[in-house]
Amino acid sequence: MAAATGGVPAVTDLFRYPIVQAPMAGGASRPELAAAVCRAGGLGFLAAGHKTPEAMYQEIRVARGLTDRPFGVNLFLPQRPVADAAAVAVYREQLAGESSWYAAPLGDTDTGGGDDGDDGYEGKLAVLTETPVAVVSFTFGCPDAGVLRALARAGTVTVVTVTSVAEARTAEAAGAAAVCVQGVEAGGHRGTHRDDPYADRGSPGLGLLTLLAQVREAVDLPLIAAGGLMRGAQIAAVLAAGAVAAQLGTAFLVCPESGADPLHKRALTDPLFPHTELTRAFTGRPARGLVNRFLREHGPYAPAAYPQVHRMTAGLRRAAARAGDPQGMALWAGQGHRMARTLSAERLVRTLAAELDEARAALLEGPGGSAAAASGTADAAGPPAAPPQKGEPA
Amino acid sequence: MAAATGGVPAVTDLFRYPIVQAPMAGGASRPELAAAVCRAGGLGFLAAGHKTPEAMYQEIRVARGLTDRPFGVNLFLPQRPVADAAAVAVYREQLAGESSWYAAPLGDTDTGGGDDGDDGYEGKLAVLTETPVAVVSFTFGCPDAGVLRALARAGTVTVVTVTSVAEARTAEAAGAAAVCVQGVEAGGHRGTHRDDPYADRGSPGLGLLTLLAQVREAVDLPLIAAGGLMRGAQIAAVLAAGAVAAQLGTAFLVCPESGADPLHKRALTDPLFPHTELTRAFTGRPARGLVNRFLREHGPYAPAAYPQVHRMTAGLRRAAARAGDPQGMALWAGQGHRMARTLSAERLVRTLAAELDEARAALLEGPGGSAAAASGTADAAGPPAAPPQKGEPA
Repeated sequence: MAAATGGVPAVTDLFRYPIVQAPMAGGASRPELAAAVCRAGGLGFLAAGHKTPEAMYQEIRVARGLTDRPFGVNLFLPQRPVADAAAVAVYREQLAGESSWYAAPLGDTDTGGGDDGDDGYEGKLAVLTETPVAVVSFTFGCPDAGVLRALARAGTVTVVTVTSVAEARTAEAAGAAAVCVQGVEAGGHRGTHRDDPYADRGSPGLGLLTLLAQVREAVDLPLIAAGGLMRGAQIAAVLAAGAVAAQLGTAFLVCPESGADPLHKRALTDPLFPHTELTRAFTGRPARGLVNRFLREHGPYAPAAYPQVHRMTAGLRRAAARAGDPQGMALWAGQGHRMARTLSAERLVRTLAAELDEARAALLEGPGGSAAAASGTADAAGPPAAPPQKGEPA
Repeated sequence: MAAATGGVPAVTDLFRYPIVQAPMAGGASRPELAAAVCRAGGLGFLAAGHKTPEAMYQEIRVARGLTDRPFGVNLFLPQRPVADAAAVAVYREQLAGESSWYAAPLGDTDTGGGDDGDDGYEGKLAVLTETPVAVVSFTFGCPDAGVLRALARAGTVTVVTVTSVAEARTAEAAGAAAVCVQGVEAGGHRGTHRDDPYADRGSPGLGLLTLLAQVREAVDLPLIAAGGLMRGAQIAAVLAAGAVAAQLGTAFLVCPESGADPLHKRALTDPLFPHTELTRAFTGRPARGLVNRFLREHGPYAPAAYPQVHRMTAGLRRAAARAGDPQGMALWAGQGHRMARTLSAERLVRTLAAELDEARAALLEGPGGSAAAASGTADAAGPPAAPPQKGEPA
């Protein structure tokens, strides 16, 4: 499927089980989590977004100390400025009450992220080209062909996150080795390449199975499927639909090795939070999280202004966590959050792999012509005779 | 899987291929379409919604004349009144310009549907109990246990359309023989049991794979999966995720046997209409259609008022179709619409079945441990050795 080119391995050579632990910026994707996933036979990921190049480098070193297996690092693409300064100022006014309530100042929208404005993108690329990792994936856009070429020369498999056929075609044209196909079910940030507040108002994105089929016919790259996946049977489903692996975030968020706040972990299966929603309330870019008070109150008018809103609310969210109040935190979650299981990462990978095998076997023996398919009679002539019908209309 | 109870066959006994043609109210689901699907080995459906009991009965007779195979009939459940009369009156004012433009009066919201206010539900049930069909499915709610029992006594398989775990549990408790699990990707009306304009504002429903996994763990009934499905590989996917069959609407809408307006058929693959959206603009209940002028202009403020808005706009939509203007029609479509193929229904069923077999075979031979699964070594110890890593961080 995923043919290796030059010195770069195929993405499918990087794992024993087709299970990728999604990179989760904001603390969940600790090296301990990535390493445990790799040791169990999956593909672990570090999340470099919202970190300095130095912090990313240190996490890579820690992960290297914990596993010899290949793992990945995810980068956020720098964003073209879209924010309307007036809209950002209005949102700041609207969050004044939150600031008093949590006794936390709103962050500076220009420097509150502690980075140079592009999330340290160039610095991170320099580190990753000098001291390569097995996989580098990208979110919020597609890097230049030159960047993808340089990483490939370093032996790195490049993966571009896409949410549409057009984005997948862009990734293929730029020379990505694979794409991560993100359905609307996915938790955390939508990886849309360009945040357009006017697009798809009433229907914010394609469901995973729909998107996967469309991307599969549009590009020749190996596909990693992401969005709402929590069980091995769903992994079997995306493989059947043409993916080479499944990427799971929320499923790993609750693992003991995940660095997510304990309040966040508990909220995922708390009946108080039955629904998720895509919102700009916390960061200014659409991201899926559990519907809580903050999201409900501020989501409807939060501006399209990433990373300005992220910087503005970062301190508030930390203060809410310190206060033990999940109603003020960004509780990122995919649509499958209620199915989260608190297992060690290794146990989770092995459980998913066993479920995948079961689902594969069941599909073969299952209803609707699978036995026929297996014995090669599926193309034989006509349907069977109709079962007797009682009471035909006269 | 789907054990037969008493004299009722299992749902899986009703088709050769696990392919259900979705009932599509509004003209697409002609008896010719249902019969052609059945003859090819799928399960065809008639759509009784927005029809009189007599018209439904005549369609059943026609279908019986065209095939000896079992087929289904879909009914809309009567709706509890939710409409705010003032909101309906305001919407009528807002559509005044459309009325002049298309030279068509707005329909009477009380009687414009030509039925007795409950879509002839009781009359249709009487017909279906007297002269049973193989399957009766329900949309917009769950019938009383007594209704489901009476149909089962008549030898009919009952199917309740569900969009959430709670609705699936209701269907199981009432005694349904199966549920149709409708993902947010599905075209036409969402089958939500109760239209709640305040629920899930920013995230109008669960993606099919997410919902399927949750419903599978919540109920023991056979599941028919619906929403955005256009290819056999997607059918393989939903079977792997635990469904016994896949239900496809938009895929069959373009068939020559479908009664959909030719403008509607063409619009599905017209680059002028790249997106779908859930909207109340045409009927007052959320339904997914291609984003056109009418939807874009009136969707944002259309009230939750079904069937009042349906009755109000029915004449407008007919007038737009007569005028050859797809921008004023309700162009129902699932998220996969761009993948529609203009094949005869029989050819489509056989193509889907062949693709399903291919996907099943590929899953067995595919990447990520399937060979291991097939040879029983999937549970064997540890992951393989890591491929060599170039340039480890020092």
